[in-house]
Amino acid sequence: MRIDLNSDLGEGFGPWRMGDDAAMLDIVTSANVACGFHAGDPGIMVETARAAKARGVALGAHPGFHDREGFGRRVIPQDPAEIEQAVAYQIGALQGCAALAGHRVSYVKAHGALANLANVEDSVAAAIARGVHAVDPGLILMVMPGLPAERAALALGLPVVREIYADRAYAEDGRLVPRSEPGAVIHEARAAAARVLRMLEAGAVETRTGGWIPVAIDTVCVHGDNPAAVAMARAVRAQLEAAGHTLASFAA
Amino acid sequence: MRIDLNSDLGEGFGPWRMGDDAAMLDIVTSANVACGFHAGDPGIMVETARAAKARGVALGAHPGFHDREGFGRRVIPQDPAEIEQAVAYQIGALQGCAALAGHRVSYVKAHGALANLANVEDSVAAAIARGVHAVDPGLILMVMPGLPAERAALALGLPVVREIYADRAYAEDGRLVPRSEPGAVIHEARAAAARVLRMLEAGAVETRTGGWIPVAIDTVCVHGDNPAAVAMARAVRAQLEAAGHTLASFAA
Amino acid sequence: MRIDLNSDLGEGFGPWRMGDDAAMLDIVTSANVACGFHAGDPGIMVETARAAKARGVALGAHPGFHDREGFGRRVIPQDPAEIEQAVAYQIGALQGCAALAGHRVSYVKAHGALANLANVEDSVAAAIARGVHAVDPGLILMVMPGLPAERAALALGLPVVREIYADRAYAEDGRLVPRSEPGAVIHEARAAAARVLRMLEAGAVETRTGGWIPVAIDTVCVHGDNPAAVAMARAVRAQLEAAGHTLASFAA
Amino acid sequence: MRIDLNSDLGEGFGPWRMGDDAAMLDIVTSANVACGFHAGDPGIMVETARAAKARGVALGAHPGFHDREGFGRRVIPQDPAEIEQAVAYQIGALQGCAALAGHRVSYVKAHGALANLANVEDSVAAAIARGVHAVDPGLILMVMPGLPAERAALALGLPVVREIYADRAYAEDGRLVPRSEPGAVIHEARAAAARVLRMLEAGAVETRTGGWIPVAIDTVCVHGDNPAAVAMARAVRAQLEAAGHTLASFAA
Repeated sequence: MRIDLNSDLGEGFGPWRMGDDAAMLDIVTSANVACGFHAGDPGIMVETARAAKARGVALGAHPGFHDREGFGRRVIPQDPAEIEQAVAYQIGALQGCAALAGHRVSYVKAHGALANLANVEDSVAAAIARGVHAVDPGLILMVMPGLPAERAALALGLPVVREIYADRAYAEDGRLVPRSEPGAVIHEARAAAARVLRMLEAGAVETRTGGWIPVAIDTVCVHGDNPAAVAMARAVRAQLEAAGHTLASFAA
Repeated sequence: MRIDLNSDLGEGFGPWRMGDDAAMLDIVTSANVACGFHAGDPGIMVETARAAKARGVALGAHPGFHDREGFGRRVIPQDPAEIEQAVAYQIGALQGCAALAGHRVSYVKAHGALANLANVEDSVAAAIARGVHAVDPGLILMVMPGLPAERAALALGLPVVREIYADRAYAEDGRLVPRSEPGAVIHEARAAAARVLRMLEAGAVETRTGGWIPVAIDTVCVHGDNPAAVAMARAVRAQLEAAGHTLASFAA
Repeated sequence: MRIDLNSDLGEGFGPWRMGDDAAMLDIVTSANVACGFHAGDPGIMVETARAAKARGVALGAHPGFHDREGFGRRVIPQDPAEIEQAVAYQIGALQGCAALAGHRVSYVKAHGALANLANVEDSVAAAIARGVHAVDPGLILMVMPGLPAERAALALGLPVVREIYADRAYAEDGRLVPRSEPGAVIHEARAAAARVLRMLEAGAVETRTGGWIPVAIDTVCVHGDNPAAVAMARAVRAQLEAAGHTLASFAA
Repeated sequence: MRIDLNSDLGEGFGPWRMGDDAAMLDIVTSANVACGFHAGDPGIMVETARAAKARGVALGAHPGFHDREGFGRRVIPQDPAEIEQAVAYQIGALQGCAALAGHRVSYVKAHGALANLANVEDSVAAAIARGVHAVDPGLILMVMPGLPAERAALALGLPVVREIYADRAYAEDGRLVPRSEPGAVIHEARAAAARVLRMLEAGAVETRTGGWIPVAIDTVCVHGDNPAAVAMARAVRAQLEAAGHTLASFAA
């Protein structure tokens, strides 16, 4: 089976860096790149696009709320039109940077609080989908399956890929358990990798209570913002390969 | 003769506005739109692109230094690679916003201190040209004729349009007299309009000492950031039409 | 009777201005000065403090959420400790600027969404009060009477002044009618001035349904962000003086 | 002999951190805390002030240009009045945060490009000194000896402390060798510590060509933005103590 591995990258700003992008680019097949609103700046974006291109890693825009101090993890009150505009702005900005790097943006994945909101509010999900569609109806939207974001994309005819998270627990409704709750984040690499394999084989999301929600799975999200996360990402990749999966981007 | 009239628009940010964009969009044929670095935000950019589209006004990206407090009028020390990246980012961002508005970016004009620097430093001029070219080699670069910015564009094969300023005095070297010097800005509408006509008829820039520098002229820059500026822009347009010029964008 | 007239001033940023501060400083007796988070920058803050000093107008810190794009009118999710820190930061910043202007900060009034939140959430009201108290327990907190902000200030022993709004309708619970609702803002100067007089004479807030809520009133808030607002502020002052009130700051 | 050890701390922003502040606070006796312009935010500032207070480390304001992307290392064109205002703003802001932490600001040290500029331009040095003096004439200014910054402070009657850098090479004029030149930064901890001891014993700055410039030395600047820097700081402290120096802040 062919499966994609994606991670949030390019999450620095100015003099600051977050995570080990170089290490992660050797592990993943798709890079979700911050577009300057919650993280990232033109230099980091071009550099990340260049490094992704050099390794054959697909490039995705990772738009978030315009909120560096909160790293895009706070809900900034905006109406749908503003969200649509901010999404279009950020995708375009990364396309500009990608052009300089000789790469191209093939997909979009919403970040943090914006992504979470799109998983509960139809109007936000639709706004994101419209922003993506306006820029290029051929852009793929990466979504959590079974939630408003996926439905909004399909309603507009956008291609979608469905993702599962390697290190985040799932509630019974298929959403992520909020970080503020105990057990929300899986810290043990081996356990995380084994769970990913189970979910891929089952074609279903495993909830924290042991329930299963059947979904299509095209990509697995791993993190790289600390050494343990990088180790986990590596473990997930190794387990996937050991189980006979072929790691490859969904982008042609 | 066919001539273009361009102006800087969309120069607000968040709750703030600058100039009377609606009035100016009825006067000009090309709108240089700030891209969120020295002014502008996604909402203002989309709104300005929409209003330009509705009036058949061509849309240009107006990239500047990332410096809202200084409105892009201060030289922020950056190396050429950073300038190239910032230009590509900003053009892409406006392209994203333009897509939402059903419009498209047909040209690029550097703003403020970045434009001034590109008129004296070859490395900056080349960086801007590379940023534009990478995003789309079909984008037109709007430049002051006879200076490094024009040469850099031509060296890369970028199409160019040459502009003169309706309200700014010219030094003997064809550059603008700095705002800090007396007589740098022409405040009288009638005098400005008459000077524009003289320059178009002569096919030359008139310097403050009465000298003439022969140049090609494709567009006239007018301002709209205060009521007097709008009145001057209107006077310039009226005089051009009275003299038999056809006002039309250079963009097809 | 002695009454204070306060207004939000110094609400520009970088190249942008909002309202006619010079006109307002001739009308009001207390100036609520933005501290660089939702508006304002060091230059504007010093300039406003200097102009206030020159006219004998009292100086108040006007802290808000760190949100220029939303002008402090959006609720940015923060925990009470963060709010407390942001308030202390902003008051200190204005104190520094005031020192340069030879003036001093005598009071604090929360801005926009932060103020609204402090009128409904005890934890936010307490956080603001703690921030003020830590910087200087002698600072006066300007509050809407009868709401959590006032109670939090009194609980800490902070001196308070109570304000009413000249141009905002009141709901039955003594809070402002949200701007999004019809009738929230009073646009007619004469009607606003007459209502202010009625409230002062009654020692009570007049609600939009004609109810009265008895409160102490130390100051009247007027706005100056457009010509009509300035005219209204002038009308309110004229009516107050005509009715025999003495306009003077509550700050010694 | 009694000597102070100072370091730049609190240089994170929002989700990003720089250096190991906890480790450095166990080594130094004075903490130069970023004030939100080139780095730092209210939360980080309060937290750093609290940690400094807990360890008896003196607190200094570390104002810089308003330039997070350039980390205050780029010269942002500002006139002296703007610099004076920005310095007063930042000191006040840290005072507000310090109050919440139960600590107080006892000194000021300019950061990065602002400090460098104050070592070559009298007008900038004077602007900084005026900003400090206006906020509190009892604040100590930390300066490189023999340069404009020191003279400007003395001219206003500000108390000064003179510092040397443990890890930076000196040019013949007593200024730092720019980071862009080879040999500008000393990377070897033992060599750096030995050089510090030599300079303290000589009461003079050792230049890269082996020259000596006699100066008063009150404090030694060490860095902590990477593990090697922390190790060097620790080595410097150990060597100073081994040589019989008492490490203590200059602030009472």
